[in-house]
Amino acid sequence: MADARFYTASGPLTLAQIAEIAGATIGEGGDPQRRFTDVAALDAAGAGDVGFLDNRKYASTLAQSRAGACLLRPELAARAPAGMAVLLTPTPYKGYARVAKAFYPEPPASGKIDPRAVVADTAKLGDRVSVGANAVIGARAEIGSDCVIGPNAVIGDGVAIGEGTRIGAGASLSHCVIGSRVSVYPGVRIGQEGFGFAPDPAGHVKVPQLGRVLIGDDCEIGANTTIDRGTASDTVIGPGCMIDNLVQIGHNVRLGRGCVVVAQVGISGSTRLDDFVVVGGQGGLAGHLHIGEGARIAAQSGVHRDVGAGEIVGGYPAVPISEWRRQAAILKRLAKRKGEQ
Amino acid sequence: MADARFYTASGPLTLAQIAEIAGATIGEGGDPQRRFTDVAALDAAGAGDVGFLDNRKYASTLAQSRAGACLLRPELAARAPAGMAVLLTPTPYKGYARVAKAFYPEPPASGKIDPRAVVADTAKLGDRVSVGANAVIGARAEIGSDCVIGPNAVIGDGVAIGEGTRIGAGASLSHCVIGSRVSVYPGVRIGQEGFGFAPDPAGHVKVPQLGRVLIGDDCEIGANTTIDRGTASDTVIGPGCMIDNLVQIGHNVRLGRGCVVVAQVGISGSTRLDDFVVVGGQGGLAGHLHIGEGARIAAQSGVHRDVGAGEIVGGYPAVPISEWRRQAAILKRLAKRKGEQ
Amino acid sequence: MADARFYTASGPLTLAQIAEIAGATIGEGGDPQRRFTDVAALDAAGAGDVGFLDNRKYASTLAQSRAGACLLRPELAARAPAGMAVLLTPTPYKGYARVAKAFYPEPPASGKIDPRAVVADTAKLGDRVSVGANAVIGARAEIGSDCVIGPNAVIGDGVAIGEGTRIGAGASLSHCVIGSRVSVYPGVRIGQEGFGFAPDPAGHVKVPQLGRVLIGDDCEIGANTTIDRGTASDTVIGPGCMIDNLVQIGHNVRLGRGCVVVAQVGISGSTRLDDFVVVGGQGGLAGHLHIGEGARIAAQSGVHRDVGAGEIVGGYPAVPISEWRRQAAILKRLAKRKGEQ
Repeated sequence: MADARFYTASGPLTLAQIAEIAGATIGEGGDPQRRFTDVAALDAAGAGDVGFLDNRKYASTLAQSRAGACLLRPELAARAPAGMAVLLTPTPYKGYARVAKAFYPEPPASGKIDPRAVVADTAKLGDRVSVGANAVIGARAEIGSDCVIGPNAVIGDGVAIGEGTRIGAGASLSHCVIGSRVSVYPGVRIGQEGFGFAPDPAGHVKVPQLGRVLIGDDCEIGANTTIDRGTASDTVIGPGCMIDNLVQIGHNVRLGRGCVVVAQVGISGSTRLDDFVVVGGQGGLAGHLHIGEGARIAAQSGVHRDVGAGEIVGGYPAVPISEWRRQAAILKRLAKRKGEQ
Repeated sequence: MADARFYTASGPLTLAQIAEIAGATIGEGGDPQRRFTDVAALDAAGAGDVGFLDNRKYASTLAQSRAGACLLRPELAARAPAGMAVLLTPTPYKGYARVAKAFYPEPPASGKIDPRAVVADTAKLGDRVSVGANAVIGARAEIGSDCVIGPNAVIGDGVAIGEGTRIGAGASLSHCVIGSRVSVYPGVRIGQEGFGFAPDPAGHVKVPQLGRVLIGDDCEIGANTTIDRGTASDTVIGPGCMIDNLVQIGHNVRLGRGCVVVAQVGISGSTRLDDFVVVGGQGGLAGHLHIGEGARIAAQSGVHRDVGAGEIVGGYPAVPISEWRRQAAILKRLAKRKGEQ
Repeated sequence: MADARFYTASGPLTLAQIAEIAGATIGEGGDPQRRFTDVAALDAAGAGDVGFLDNRKYASTLAQSRAGACLLRPELAARAPAGMAVLLTPTPYKGYARVAKAFYPEPPASGKIDPRAVVADTAKLGDRVSVGANAVIGARAEIGSDCVIGPNAVIGDGVAIGEGTRIGAGASLSHCVIGSRVSVYPGVRIGQEGFGFAPDPAGHVKVPQLGRVLIGDDCEIGANTTIDRGTASDTVIGPGCMIDNLVQIGHNVRLGRGCVVVAQVGISGSTRLDDFVVVGGQGGLAGHLHIGEGARIAAQSGVHRDVGAGEIVGGYPAVPISEWRRQAAILKRLAKRKGEQ
């Protein structure tokens, strides 16, 4: 059960309500009026809790579980212990996400502007915007309705933010246009100048960065991540992208829709990712590359060439993943042989 | 000598006091009443300074040094120049650390709450807590005695902190319980939501993160490091862990006691490190792994499998360190052969 | 054209003025009195814009461009379309940087100290210093003329900053001396304690860090980068260094003049880089190394040995770049052979 200092469960919800929220159907014998008060992992759940089983590998946990209800695929329903209500769905994890959100909805924007926030006279705030203590909102900034600006965050002059977006504590934004329902985590830096200069032994000459950062709707930008603004054009993050912590996104980079970028990845200037690309943790992409739709890049890979749509690559330098696995296997064998001599 | 703008040496201390602080014994001919005013590196030290020699490689520095006293191992005592007091100990570096701390103790918490700090009415502060300008302390937060909260730091609602802990400038904490005598450096982000969502081309569905971050006593968390809170259970950092700058620790990760995690390491969700594991800089650990007690992971390694207690691994993907060295040697030889053709 | 919410072009400038700023000569037929209002990329430029062509690879863009003027090398002048004024220079990109800066000069320090800034009584501020809302400036700090301190930045006690330096939003500085015309980006952490302790199973013993960080004139320090202070001596960044985002610089590291350090690089304690060293993104350098003047380290390399002046290295562990390329080629061939079996 969640720590009451930090979380308050709403509810209870009936099995029928939960099924509807999850997009699931109630399995044989389930009582639609049975009430539930919380979500929990299968191995920690009790009679009032809803759990889920997504990975067949953990099917053995199911039989031992005391959860009152479980979201699972129809073919596993028979393995549920007696008395457990089953909720049938082809996508149990997604269903669980929705049910958990119903029990723990994000608290709405309070609409309270802390008296210690510093909001420019010319800034425009929508309805029910809440602004934390010591946050700073610059001249001509536009903040949509239902936004939450965290304590000590800094929103620069002219920045525009859509509706229902949340900016974390201590984050700073400048030279950017942010969509709706975006989560910007604490310490994020968006819109500062990119790394552009003409090298010169007499003193490198900085090139003014005159573009913006554009972030689409429904994105997440993880803690302490940095996204530089464009040089002449813009740095663009498409709608629905999930970006983890400590990621570096260089100037003029463009991400399509729904990309997933895991922690500590670096994407160099002007590289373009089409829709639904996935980059594993600590991966590095050189500049001016094109990564095709749905491509997947393994964790820690170093990508120096374009990657085609749907390709899966890994290694340093990155090659098709099966080739990388063969490289590792060969190297292992050669090293073993030498070790045996 | 330390810059007086930033440091003030307390002291002087007698050789006898220093020996006691260091847990060392005074070598032949040393005058217990001789007074010292500072610590210094052997090559910069003068007659009033205490130096140390830990690495036999630098033994030649000893003969040239003008340090008034030196912490060293008994077997090197004979190499000290005439007039230098020697302090004998099997652990000179640890002894030096203690002596340096005696000359430069951390200033105690001032007990001053800056009038520009924003402290919620329902927050509870212990004795002698100092709170910097523009720091924000949320509702129901509990801050133990002798804590120092830096300027512009943000402590979220309900956060609990032990005694004598220091929170750096601009750090932000939420959904966490922090031990005593912990150092949280500037810009650290603790307790934000982890990277958890059900992937879906129609829009990834975020999974509510309902756990906490628990940090044990005597930990150090380096600048701009990020530690995400758990999903259902907690993210746990055991007592005495040393975590460097820009490290990423994912949700549900668990570190035992005394682990050392060097800068820019990434540890993926649900991976578990037993006591005294060391991870070198920029190392990456995949999710759901188990790293045994005392295991050591070389810098920049990519770990995709469990590592046994006491094992030393390196490479990408990581293998036993001796195997990795052979791999590198073989590759070097093959490349040279080809280069000569 | 730049977004008017964020940028205002000064100007217009005549071709003669632009030529002088760029250090270029006007090509045949160019009208020195012709006026220009902006800079733009060649493929987006119109009659009032100045573009540039630096990379011969993009020469085909030139013929299609509608730019009113173009900075280029003399040998490409003949390829410019009729009506385009050409500005001849051996360094078009550097010329462009200067022209862009003339159209978009950094706004001078406003000299306004926000009433919500917290400036210690004993701090000394030069002329025309501007200090953002909720910035905190500590006791005895010295800030030179024309500096701009961003909102929510924290300048620690005793910190000294030269003239015309800019400190980004939310950055924090302590135990450091910063030169003139330095750009410190948002979220940077300078001067916190380095990662130094005597390992001990009974509890690692922290070694007091008693040095400083010294940053030379004309440096750039990228967003969320961390630079630890020295242990006994100082951590030193030479003049004119360009450091990108999320870089980690350990205690006692020394960089010479004009070094370029790309995003997410980590440099371990006491390593020394001579002038004009370049380190590619995500590169890692072990501690106590010496990297010679003008050496270049490829992105993601792991450097465990000294690198000579002018050497170019790559790989993990890093070897001369040509050797690393051969290693990759051999591995590729071996893997292919096995794949075909």
